[in-house]
This record gives sequence, structure tokens and C-alpha cells, in this order.
Amino acid sequence: MEEKRAKIKVGVLGATGAVGQKFVVLLSGHPWFQLTELGASERSAGKPYREAVNWVQKVDLPREFQNLEIKECDPSQMDCEIVFSALDASIAGEVETAFAKSGIAVFSNSKNHRLSQLVPLTIPEVNPEHFGLLELQQKEGGSKGFIVTNSNCSTMFLAMALAPIHQKYGVEKVQVTTMQAVSGAGYPGVPSLDILGNVIPYIGGEEEKIEIEARKILGEFKGDRIELAPFVVSAQCNRVAVEEGHLECVSVSLKAKPSLQEFIETYRNHSSSLTTELSLPSAPLKPIVVMEETNRPQPKKDVEREKGMLTLIGRIRECPVLDFKFVILGHNTIRGAAGASLLNAEYLVAKGLLGGRDS
Amino acid sequence: MEEKRAKIKVGVLGATGAVGQKFVVLLSGHPWFQLTELGASERSAGKPYREAVNWVQKVDLPREFQNLEIKECDPSQMDCEIVFSALDASIAGEVETAFAKSGIAVFSNSKNHRLSQLVPLTIPEVNPEHFGLLELQQKEGGSKGFIVTNSNCSTMFLAMALAPIHQKYGVEKVQVTTMQAVSGAGYPGVPSLDILGNVIPYIGGEEEKIEIEARKILGEFKGDRIELAPFVVSAQCNRVAVEEGHLECVSVSLKAKPSLQEFIETYRNHSSSLTTELSLPSAPLKPIVVMEETNRPQPKKDVEREKGMLTLIGRIRECPVLDFKFVILGHNTIRGAAGASLLNAEYLVAKGLLGGRDS
Amino acid sequence: MEEKRAKIKVGVLGATGAVGQKFVVLLSGHPWFQLTELGASERSAGKPYREAVNWVQKVDLPREFQNLEIKECDPSQMDCEIVFSALDASIAGEVETAFAKSGIAVFSNSKNHRLSQLVPLTIPEVNPEHFGLLELQQKEGGSKGFIVTNSNCSTMFLAMALAPIHQKYGVEKVQVTTMQAVSGAGYPGVPSLDILGNVIPYIGGEEEKIEIEARKILGEFKGDRIELAPFVVSAQCNRVAVEEGHLECVSVSLKAKPSLQEFIETYRNHSSSLTTELSLPSAPLKPIVVMEETNRPQPKKDVEREKGMLTLIGRIRECPVLDFKFVILGHNTIRGAAGASLLNAEYLVAKGLLGGRDS
Amino acid sequence: MEEKRAKIKVGVLGATGAVGQKFVVLLSGHPWFQLTELGASERSAGKPYREAVNWVQKVDLPREFQNLEIKECDPSQMDCEIVFSALDASIAGEVETAFAKSGIAVFSNSKNHRLSQLVPLTIPEVNPEHFGLLELQQKEGGSKGFIVTNSNCSTMFLAMALAPIHQKYGVEKVQVTTMQAVSGAGYPGVPSLDILGNVIPYIGGEEEKIEIEARKILGEFKGDRIELAPFVVSAQCNRVAVEEGHLECVSVSLKAKPSLQEFIETYRNHSSSLTTELSLPSAPLKPIVVMEETNRPQPKKDVEREKGMLTLIGRIRECPVLDFKFVILGHNTIRGAAGASLLNAEYLVAKGLLGGRDS
Repeated sequence: MEEKRAKIKVGVLGATGAVGQKFVVLLSGHPWFQLTELGASERSAGKPYREAVNWVQKVDLPREFQNLEIKECDPSQMDCEIVFSALDASIAGEVETAFAKSGIAVFSNSKNHRLSQLVPLTIPEVNPEHFGLLELQQKEGGSKGFIVTNSNCSTMFLAMALAPIHQKYGVEKVQVTTMQAVSGAGYPGVPSLDILGNVIPYIGGEEEKIEIEARKILGEFKGDRIELAPFVVSAQCNRVAVEEGHLECVSVSLKAKPSLQEFIETYRNHSSSLTTELSLPSAPLKPIVVMEETNRPQPKKDVEREKGMLTLIGRIRECPVLDFKFVILGHNTIRGAAGASLLNAEYLVAKGLLGGRDS
Repeated sequence: MEEKRAKIKVGVLGATGAVGQKFVVLLSGHPWFQLTELGASERSAGKPYREAVNWVQKVDLPREFQNLEIKECDPSQMDCEIVFSALDASIAGEVETAFAKSGIAVFSNSKNHRLSQLVPLTIPEVNPEHFGLLELQQKEGGSKGFIVTNSNCSTMFLAMALAPIHQKYGVEKVQVTTMQAVSGAGYPGVPSLDILGNVIPYIGGEEEKIEIEARKILGEFKGDRIELAPFVVSAQCNRVAVEEGHLECVSVSLKAKPSLQEFIETYRNHSSSLTTELSLPSAPLKPIVVMEETNRPQPKKDVEREKGMLTLIGRIRECPVLDFKFVILGHNTIRGAAGASLLNAEYLVAKGLLGGRDS
Repeated sequence: MEEKRAKIKVGVLGATGAVGQKFVVLLSGHPWFQLTELGASERSAGKPYREAVNWVQKVDLPREFQNLEIKECDPSQMDCEIVFSALDASIAGEVETAFAKSGIAVFSNSKNHRLSQLVPLTIPEVNPEHFGLLELQQKEGGSKGFIVTNSNCSTMFLAMALAPIHQKYGVEKVQVTTMQAVSGAGYPGVPSLDILGNVIPYIGGEEEKIEIEARKILGEFKGDRIELAPFVVSAQCNRVAVEEGHLECVSVSLKAKPSLQEFIETYRNHSSSLTTELSLPSAPLKPIVVMEETNRPQPKKDVEREKGMLTLIGRIRECPVLDFKFVILGHNTIRGAAGASLLNAEYLVAKGLLGGRDS
Repeated sequence: MEEKRAKIKVGVLGATGAVGQKFVVLLSGHPWFQLTELGASERSAGKPYREAVNWVQKVDLPREFQNLEIKECDPSQMDCEIVFSALDASIAGEVETAFAKSGIAVFSNSKNHRLSQLVPLTIPEVNPEHFGLLELQQKEGGSKGFIVTNSNCSTMFLAMALAPIHQKYGVEKVQVTTMQAVSGAGYPGVPSLDILGNVIPYIGGEEEKIEIEARKILGEFKGDRIELAPFVVSAQCNRVAVEEGHLECVSVSLKAKPSLQEFIETYRNHSSSLTTELSLPSAPLKPIVVMEETNRPQPKKDVEREKGMLTLIGRIRECPVLDFKFVILGHNTIRGAAGASLLNAEYLVAKGLLGGRDS
């Protein structure tokens, strides 16, 4: 990729919310993308970003975006080739469709289109072939615009962890119990009176998302649709008093029966040649890192590694009920949200499918 | 039971530790037992209790025990019929055996003798027939003394929850992921730097205990031994920033295949006739309470109910991988520790097997 | 007081909010008061209480009130002699005035009328003579109804702690830094993302309230008004990750110069003869308890004592800048809110000023 | 300073403890210093660092030091020009003296020598003239070695905040209430059972340190001793459930009476020309940063700024009791501990007093 090319103009929809802010942070200083458009509600439109936003990130609001004027989420007002959508599910469906129809590439973190037949639900290291749906989507929409989605935050790390073993041994059954950070509920999100010194064993809609989205991500691209992966997932979701990082206890059964050592080696040897070759700015060196310590990964100690784009796996051991069990961890608002959308966009740019670039 | 009988003299071994203190709290004002002996290390012996103890309970050190003199854990020095043992596992084995040999009934919260062939691992509402081992134990030991144990804290609530469905449908497989309170690690226990805003996905030895102890509790009394229950358990244990209360996400498969409604009704209809009839002072009205709210039970909100002697169950639903899944909660330092020992003792007294009482 | 008298009918305004719920809890089983009316917003009116309320208390919603029908906060619809007001400050002013005008005694936890010239801001153990304003208030309002207020939560414990030393030595200057529980902000209140592992050194309006309300409470009743106490207060308020209990570090200078020993004895000897004689159901045995331990009082360990109606004081020592410094603690949603209103009402009943009772 | 000079060899005493680890982190990749010696207890001596240490930092143990062999804290075994001491106070006194006598420059974070007459207690931006004591110290010790100390963690931010106003207006009285992070107690430090959902209003020895150390730092160098600054400090110290960052509420009275605006401007205009000119690697651009938001600084959101070397100040306003009040925050284990020692060493190197360098 030539470094001297002009940056691609991008926008963020839902820019004042917690995930929208994360997009803004990740796009600050991005080598390929220039954030030029911030979309939010009618109420915010017309204000400079710094006035419209209740900034809740730990890093400062990047200086270059402080005075960017908020626009309504209307494609006719936005001059950009790509939008990243952090819209609330109550409006994301229609707005994203409108942007796609108007010729803009939409990378959405919302749930609305994830299960639509022609919409890829992608992790570039896992199922890049699903991007093959885009051509059909463009054809059906009659526009060069399209929608690409990334998964629910807790699904992300599960799907990343299942990918190498599904490919090699065939996953049959998955039990997962999550312990999810409060940041996953946005801002203001979980009241402190509910979570201080407590665990809430319920997150609305989360278990259903995990049980279906993981199967689409690991499903087979059949030319015109994705065939769900033929395994079954059972999820139990809990909210814990952690700020960032979803921890998940997983058990799996497999069609093939590797030894524990082979199973572990599959993770140790796993890498993402695609990513490495393409030099995507947001891709981690290895998407999955195996931790050897008996008591890791831990959210507070490990979640920031590699800029929050890793899935960490530890405590891999045999399971008396299924075949193997282990613990996974990932950064829910980066790899599990804004970073995932960004990586999808980077992948398509690197592949020459966006931005007029060649790989 | 006659109310006018003299109270039975009891002692607490390991009285200065966190569980030992809980015994002292629960024995204050107990209608059947009079705490007369406090045993601790050589270092503490001779001191009044209030000076030897670093009191970490929320209620005040009961006035009547403040000046009780600490003794060494030596049966020849203790004038009592029963001892409750909160000894550290490093010494509990030998000391408890010595007390039993000297004719004292030992109710132990330590792990050392739990799996011994002639030692009952009991929950009075679940497996009172296991007390049948005591006669053999007394015979073998050549003394009227004996040892009774209660389970590891996180096993307690699992075993209580499995009991009614194992009896009715036959449990085959169990997956359990625990989120355990810091009080389970004693005092000083878990450093705040490790757990504030964090989850630690490992508790040494805990998974092994759950996987075997639940099978002994629900095992069959064969006259001279307990045959382990023929199901398999897989446990994943986590420490969370909760003060009291272990929450557990459970999935089970059953031999018989009840409907979800039948499965739930089994819990709703479950009661402990034994307990009710015997009027044990520490027994809850119903050992298991079903919660209907979508997001309960929760440690902070529910764990104190019925003086911490309940197992709470909620979110009962079908499991796509096994048959049913649900969430359970219990008070780890009461029902999961000191209260469990106490209930075992009360049961034997009510049955006339201790204290010269008739039921 | 005769025990056989009928209970006095009371209502709660703002019954669905966090403080309103606390009133409901405290009124359950109250020996003098019968809760018959629950007032809330138009939106809730007509619903049974259990459906209208998002119950956030640790104890269950009392069975006897679950089906009580919510009414609008309109005096013509409420059949009761007393209302306890937990209304939001945005509407409390007018609504409370309307109730008083209609002949109902209003005990308000809201800030609106606290500084009004004819409205008592009272703590029965501290300034009962301020109730002398009620006669004037009734005359001015042309009704037997009136409004009585209690202080802001963090002011309560400061005023209680200053009272005995102000009376004896004359307070001149007060420095107070508070560390306040999240429950003080109501529900949902403080977002967990803001307070987990954090301190927020600001609570809107709180410092101003402390600096003036303490002076009114300890002011002199001049027949037709309260003359503010002639000391000056400087407050710095912080929110901490504590659930219940405001802790305050205080330094004071005094006109008279007692020795440290005399100063401490003033607290040790302090009692509330009024309270004891009147047998108010919600009054603690002693309003102020001195703790001797070097590291107490602590919110988690001490705040529930005496049903949350105490002010605890500890670490009393000389101050190099002012005269003495110490730490105080109290339960912000009980003694600092609902319990304070209730105690005011009990006092007036016991004095025969309400409910047709004689003391 | 010439960049091509060889790095200065340095060691860390007490390298396995929490502060020792922080020194190791800060020295990794340091442009002037090469960490070559790690000193710890006899028990650890001989082991590679990674085996001897219970690493509790969030960043990984730097690869280059993982296999460095631990030595005993004996100057004859250590080949270095400088040692940074994170020794426990129980042994720091003698060991540090031994190192100084043997010709090594000791930069100590321990309390033992802070108040010794010839030992500088320094903050390079505040009182560099106190380094003038070193010549006398070397003379008295008969060695080119010496000891330099930095203050207690909570004193650091107070002294930094008092410095510009003391110089300009003359500080007379200081009231400070601290809310201190658990990391200040080292590891394992504060038990989670003590601090979860709690505040502990006591930290042993802390108040005394603040009340005297701030006066030495801001004292006058009289050629052969430091004359304590003529103001009085009253401190109240609390432990809160925060991981990193001490927050302090401060009130001050001054000899001169600036307006609030002048007072604030003093902080806004404050800078450290010395630091800027000398390009010390660990110095922040400005030592004190004024925050304008009404609710800042906050530990979780602000403490990491400028690599934890700042003192942040906010909420500057008039105080009704003294003259002005405000809130300060700093990183207790970096600027309040290891980073402070490092900055002292960098300053002396830059001034040509160490390492054979010229400024």
C-alpha cells in the first residue's frame, strides 16, 4: 500500500455515545482514515463535538475533533466514503440502510443487520470469505454502498477462540458462562447501587446473541448466504464489577478428539497470516495469545494488551463433561466493538474493495 | 424435645480465624448449645478471646465470650461434648482425629476427612442416611467420639440444588461455573490490589473439591461406605469482588426428561419435612427458594435471607447443550461453612444421637 | 402514651423513589403510624404499589403495602393526618405547601423549605425548641397543617456531632471533608463507570447545604425566627464507592478551650434524656456513640448499628490548625433522610402536638 | 548533555517488592541509566529475578531483566554508581547508610533518613537548593556516596501544590484530608474484605509524616541544615477503594491575601524552567496542571496523565474558614514513590553531580 495516498474520509454515526466516542479515539491519528463527519441526534446537530458530547473516555477528546460540527445522521449531509455506526438499535436499522443505499460503506456495531442474509458478520482473521456477500448486497441495493457488521461483544472472543479448533477438529457443543464488564452497558449504563459488591446474573438479549452469532461467524459461505455452523451453544451471562474486559469460561466438545497437548498447540501455533501480510493498522500481531499462568487471563491485568485487540486464552484443560475447558478474555469496547468495525474496514481497504486502494 | 434440659457444652477449634469467628457468632444465644471452650494456636492460648482475636465480623464480638480464655486444641483440656472445627487444613486432620478418639463429637468444616470412607459428608436435608456411618466410625475408633464433615462452600449450594432433581430424574452431567465471594478465602485472604475491578479465574483446589464432593453427598449409603453418585461434574471457579455469597451458573442433563414446567415445579414443591418436624434452630423453612425475577438471585440483595441458610435458585430454563440451566446462590460462610456444621450437630441432637436428648 | 389508641394514618409522597421506599420500609410495622396513602407521579397513579415501584431495598417490599393503590400527590385524595415527603426538589415546594394548607402535617426530606423562616429544620435530640415555629406557621397558613424539614444527609451527622460541643464550648470554625455513599444520589444515581475504583471530588449543591443548614439547626429560636449559629463552616464533598454511610473528617475550633479529655468526655456523657423519656420508637438509645478503635468508624462495618439512627464518632484528637479533629459516620438514607423525618413526627406525636395523643 | 555517553550503572534495593518493581519498570529503556543490579533478601539471592519476584505490575516484567540474578543488599557485591532504594523501613536505615559509606549514591523512597539533618528531602522542581546538603553529608561520611530521599507519597502532592503559593504568598496553615489508593500499602497490603465498599479512616503514621515532611521540603536551606517552613499542617488520612492515585482536599491560609483570580493564576502560570532546560527524562512538561471541570481531578480518569508524574489541581475556590480550598491528585506509586527517586537522580546527573556528566 502506498503511504502517500490521500486518507479516506470517514464518519461516525452515533458519535456522542460511549461506543461512538471509542470510534473517535481509535480514528485519531489513524494512518488510512480521516474522520470528517460526526453524526448524532437532531438535538446535538449543529453543535461543536466538544459541547454535544459527555466525554467518558480516559484519554482526552482528541484536539482535532473538538470543534467538528455535529450533523444529523443523514447521508446527504455527510461527505465521506465510509461510516462507522454506533447507533442505538432503536434507529440503527433504517439509518444504516439509508447510508448503504446512498453509496456509503457502513461498518456497524449495532445488532440490527447482523443476521440479515446478505450482510456479512465478520472477523477478518476468522471468516473473511463472508465478505463475498457484499457483491450480492450491492447488487440488491442498487448501490456501491453496503453494510458490514461485527458481532456482539461477548460473542467476539468466543468466536475468535472457537475458530481455530472448529476448523481443525469440528466444534459440536459449546457451554459458555460470561462475566461481563459494566462498560458493555454503555453510559450511564449500570447503576453503581446495582453492581458494587454484586454480580447480576442476567444481561437482556445477550445469551440469545451469543448462541446464534457465533454460528453465523463460523458458518460456511455458500455463494449467496451463510450456512450456520452445525454446533450448538449454550450461554449464561453475568454482569460483574469490572470496568473493561469480558471474561468467559468455556467448555467445548469436538468431532475429532485431539489430545490436550494437540489442542493447546493449535492455539499456540495459530496466527493470522492474512493480517500480517496486509499490515492492517489495528490488527494485533497474533489474534489469540495463550497465557500459561494458572490464574490468567484477568480483566484488570491483561485486557489492555496489544491495544485491546487480542483474545487471551488460559487455563486450557480437559473437561469431564465435554472435551476441553478454558477461560477467554477480550476488551469489550475495543475488539468487542469499535475496534472490530475498524478492522473490518481496514481489511476491505487493504483488499482494494474500498477507497480506491490496491493491496 | 424438652426445653428445660441443660444446654450441651460445645467448643470451637480454630476460634480466632474467620470461620471460627462465624461459629462464635452463630453460637451466641443458641438455644441448645453453650459455647464453653475456645481452641486456638499455642500462641493465643491463655489469652482472653477478645485479645487473641482480630475480629472481622460485622456484628460485635458477643459480650459473653469476650473474656473466655483461649485454650490449645487439646481434647484433654476441653470440657465439652461437641467441638466445631474451623482448623486450617494443615493441622485439622490430626487434631480432629484426636478429639474424636477422646470421645468428643467433631463437626468439621475442614477438607481433611471429607472423603474418608467412614466419615459422613452431610447436609441434613439431603443425605441424613449417611450419618449411618457414625456407628462404624465409633466402633473403629473405639470411642463414642466421631467426625462429621460438611462440604466445601461452593459444593454446598450445588449439592443442595442437585438433590431434588437427582432423586426424581437422575442427574447425569453437571457443568458449573462459580463466581465466589472474597470471604471464602478467609482473612486477610484476597489482596484488594488483586480483586478491585477484576475477576480471578482460578481458586486453588476448588474445582477438584466440587467435582468429587457433590458426588459423595448425593451418593448411596451402602451400610459400610458411600457409593459415589454416578454423575460427572465439571467446574470452573472464579473469584469476584463480592463480599459474601457464591453465585453459580449450572447446566445439567438428566436421565429422565421432565418438561421445563415439571423441572421448575420440582423445586417449588421441594421442602424439608425432616427439618420442619425436628425444629432445628438453624434450619430454614425451605432449604431451596425459587426466585421468579429475571435477574435474580444476586449476592448483595439476596444472600442474607433466612439468616444465610438458604440455597436460592433462579433463571431456570432449557439448556441447548445439556437439559436445563439455572443460577444458584448461597451464603458461603454461613450455609457454606459454619452454619452447615451447626446444622449437622443440631440434626444429631434432635435425633437423640448426641447430648442425651430424645427427639 | 396509651398503647390502645388507634394508629395515626400517614402517607408517603414520592413513594416510588429510593427515599420513598425507605419510608415505606420504616413504616412497616410502626407502632404508632399506619401507612394508608402512597403518592407518586400521575404516571404511576392507579397502579398497585408493587407494579409502580422499581424496588431497590434489600428487604422485601412489605406484603401489606404491595397492593396499595398509588394516588397522585393531591391532598384532596389522601385520607391521612401526616405525610412524609420524599418528593423531588423540582416539585416538592408547591406540593408540600398545598398539603400543609389543607391541614396535613408534612415531614419533608426535600430541600425546598429547609431555609424558610417559619419552617423548623429539626433534629429532636438537638433543637426541639425550633418546633415553636409551628404555631406561627399554622397561623400564617390559616390551617392546622404545617411543614417540618430535616437536614441534608451529610449535614445531619455534622450537626449532631457539633451540638453537644457547641452548647458547652461554643463552636467557632468548622472544616469538614465528606466521603459520601452512592445511595445518597438515589437510584439509578451514580453510574458504575464513574465510581468503580474512583472518587468524585464534587457533589452538586452539597457543600452549600452543609455550610448553611448546620448553622440553622444549631441556631437560636427567637420566638418568630431562627438566628443562625455564629460559626462558619467550610465543606469539601466527595463521592466514594460505598453503598451506605457518609464518613466525614471534621476539624473544629471552639470559644472555650477544653482539654482533649474534657472534649472526649463531653461526647461520652452525651445522652438524649428527651428521647429516652418519650420512648420514641425510632430513637437510638444514645444519639452519639464514641468509638475507641484507632481505625473506626467505618461505613461497611458500623453504619447499620442501632438501625442506622446513630452518629458514630471516632479518632478524636487535637488539631494543629484548629482545636480538635475527629471522624463521624452515619447512615445517609436512614438517619440522614427517611429516619430523620420519622423521628421528627414521632417527637411531635409524643409531645401531643399531633395525632390527638398526650405525652 | 551528550547522548553518546555510556549509561550510568544503577541498582534497585528491595527489587522484589511493589515499589521495587515500579523502579524496574521505570528503568526499562531509560535513556541515561542502565539497571544492572537487583538487591533483595537473602532468601531471594541467587535466583533469577523472574523467579524471585511476585510480579504485580500491569505491564509485563521487562524481558531484559527477567534473568538478572538477585543479589543480597550488600554494596561490596554491587557494581553500580547509583542505587534506588525501595527497602522496607525495618532495614532501610542501616543498609542505605552502608551503601552511601561505600561511595554509592542512594536515592531512597524509605522514611528512615527523610528527617536526618544532612539528608535532602527533595523535589527537583521545588527545593533543588537542598541538594546543597550533599557536600556536607559526603564530608561527614568520608565518602563520595550520599543519601537523597523523597517524601511520603501523600506529602508529595501537597508539597508540590503548596510550593508556588508558599513562595509567593507565604503559607500559614494547611488542612488536608486524604483519600488514598490501596497501592500505597504495597502488596498484599489491604485485604479486600476490609476495603470493598468501605473507607478506612486511618493509615498508620501517615498523618505525622505529612505534617512534618511538607515543612522540611518547603523549608529554608541554611548552609548546614534545613529550617522547617513556619507553617502548620493538620492531616486526616483515609484509605479508599481506589487502585492508584491519592486524592487530597486541601484548605490553606496565607500571609499575603491574593484574590481568588490571582491565586488561580499562580498555578496556571507555574512552570518548571529548571526541568525544561535540563530535559530530565522523567520530568513532566509542567509539574502542576490546573483542571477546570467542576468534578475533577479524579483518580481513575486523571492519574495516568504525563506518565503519572503530575500533580493535578482542581476546584480552586475560597474557603470560609481559611483562605482557599482545592483538590489535588497524584500517582502515589510513580510521582509519589519510584518516579520521585528517579527524578532526583536525573536532576543530579544533569547538574553534573553524578555520573561524570556535565549539564
